[in-house]
Amino acid sequence: MAGQGVSAFLVTRRTDAFYLTGFTSEDSAILVLPRAVHVISDARFEETISDEIPWARKHLRKNLLADEIGKVCRSLDLKELYVQPSGLTVSDHAALRKAVRPTKLVAAPAICKSLRICKDETEIKALGRAIRVAQKAFQAVCSQLRVGMTERELAARIEYEMRLLGAEGASFDTIVAIDANASHPHAHAGSRRIRSGSSVLIDWGAVVGWYRSDLTRCIFVNKIPPRIGKVYDVVLEAQLAAIRAVKPGARMCDVDDVARGVIRKAGFGDRFGHGLGHGLGLEVHEPPSLSWRSAEKLAAGMVVTVEPGIYLPGVGGVRIEDDVLVVPGGCRVLSHLPKQLGRSVVRF
Amino acid sequence: MAGQGVSAFLVTRRTDAFYLTGFTSEDSAILVLPRAVHVISDARFEETISDEIPWARKHLRKNLLADEIGKVCRSLDLKELYVQPSGLTVSDHAALRKAVRPTKLVAAPAICKSLRICKDETEIKALGRAIRVAQKAFQAVCSQLRVGMTERELAARIEYEMRLLGAEGASFDTIVAIDANASHPHAHAGSRRIRSGSSVLIDWGAVVGWYRSDLTRCIFVNKIPPRIGKVYDVVLEAQLAAIRAVKPGARMCDVDDVARGVIRKAGFGDRFGHGLGHGLGLEVHEPPSLSWRSAEKLAAGMVVTVEPGIYLPGVGGVRIEDDVLVVPGGCRVLSHLPKQLGRSVVRF
Repeated sequence: MAGQGVSAFLVTRRTDAFYLTGFTSEDSAILVLPRAVHVISDARFEETISDEIPWARKHLRKNLLADEIGKVCRSLDLKELYVQPSGLTVSDHAALRKAVRPTKLVAAPAICKSLRICKDETEIKALGRAIRVAQKAFQAVCSQLRVGMTERELAARIEYEMRLLGAEGASFDTIVAIDANASHPHAHAGSRRIRSGSSVLIDWGAVVGWYRSDLTRCIFVNKIPPRIGKVYDVVLEAQLAAIRAVKPGARMCDVDDVARGVIRKAGFGDRFGHGLGHGLGLEVHEPPSLSWRSAEKLAAGMVVTVEPGIYLPGVGGVRIEDDVLVVPGGCRVLSHLPKQLGRSVVRF
Repeated sequence: MAGQGVSAFLVTRRTDAFYLTGFTSEDSAILVLPRAVHVISDARFEETISDEIPWARKHLRKNLLADEIGKVCRSLDLKELYVQPSGLTVSDHAALRKAVRPTKLVAAPAICKSLRICKDETEIKALGRAIRVAQKAFQAVCSQLRVGMTERELAARIEYEMRLLGAEGASFDTIVAIDANASHPHAHAGSRRIRSGSSVLIDWGAVVGWYRSDLTRCIFVNKIPPRIGKVYDVVLEAQLAAIRAVKPGARMCDVDDVARGVIRKAGFGDRFGHGLGHGLGLEVHEPPSLSWRSAEKLAAGMVVTVEPGIYLPGVGGVRIEDDVLVVPGGCRVLSHLPKQLGRSVVRF
């Protein structure tokens, strides 16, 4: 803050508030000053504040959050309040601008984004736990698979197992897409049922210690549909090649193009419509964007998903996704579920 | 739109986009014009668009959403684009303003808010389904309760049962708070375990057809802790009195005060720190705010939660919550789980 001339920083993005202080409650704001941290919240979170940030100066609002922030600004005689342009809606910003008068709102630089983009050891451990819980839940569910189960039931079971294993919840709405439904990259788990010969795409993750994992595997019930098997080989080759290209200094678009090149060469270039991956941490999609849209460079400490896919409307889809930590000279794949085609067959 | 002079309306709030069109995908925008609806999305959602809004004009972006919206604005030669101040962050707004030039951004009036605040018959049916699924899941879990179960396990089971019953997911992070943990109005489900004599507060809801229910019940294992039992009587009296006060024309703050008065009179006025309730629909918290903060009036068609509570740090907490539809002359309670103190005891 000192280096960027930020005297009073209002943190309204909840994940940033957690990152900076460990505070987990919604509908609250954190005010960071050079010598003190204030929390502006309400009575619902009084005890959470005592548990998580007893050292913060506490303001429990009875009225609107903006009005309480205004009171705090005036009591501290702040000239300027730096706010997060990505953490306020246009209407919240307008209400806050009025409420804090005579304090002036100033757009803060992306302090938290630049801190959060590279993960420290504690964060990498937390991500490792979130990945392990997701993996164990997946293995438990694979052993429970039966013909006749619906997508929705599978999604319910994997989320249940993650919770039992200690997750605070699922990282995002679990995708379970059977057969042709898997041609939607972001399918809703619905009422389609498993049959012998089905291919099942599962995209899921766990929240553990507020960090989020994100994995995708395809499994095949008893046998591999030939066309999908061929596509699987291409996607796996693309994924492995892209992982080999992940290292500090590599441009996002170039890593994306390694995977895309393999898929293009196999004749499926127009069936891989999304980016190769994204950053992962307190949010399931956070910077960097590992896609053709970004010429930024990877750096040690970044954690990204690598998840190429091929989607054939009316037929099905394949995506393979792992979570990868950039380390000096290369990368370390943090997730460890088998992904060879032969090992993706579940028999019963 | 015509009545309010809105010529081209960009919908960026996902629930508003669903409300207006039935489209469910994220990272997308809907542009409503007098004679056409456009959807700006990306390849991940190509099939979802065909399934849900085949009649919309489709623009699949390869680059940033703002840039694609800009292209569409220029191709349609729009002079002004009305945007949702509550549906764009300050940084998205700034990026969009640049990207749509020479089209000018204008703040749209709260068209969707005023449409959504009163529910039509289809919506009331959808809310009814979301409530029934939540209730059935609760009853299933009550029959599965065992000494030694953790809060987290209970939360996992209720979410699993809701999914099996057809829910798309939980309305929000399920709260299960045992004994003293229930003094946090918004407790995280953790590792506390059920014992004989425990009181258990459960606050949960289901998403069905994208509509969300929100209920709270307290249950007592084998016996009722005397102090909590006394508090329960007060909260139930407050809730029933407030429900009797719900009718068209009643001010939010007055209904809130009916419940608050009962609690104040019993000596717990400072232990009920949150508002009495909130609107419910496609979002779990939506207008109106049934609290001391609002002098707006209830109207037929509004659906609100009525959820007074008393929280005693170190001891526990009680909250009772139902979902209530305002009808001409009064209200109809949409949720039907028993709440008499005697019927809240689970024995095993």
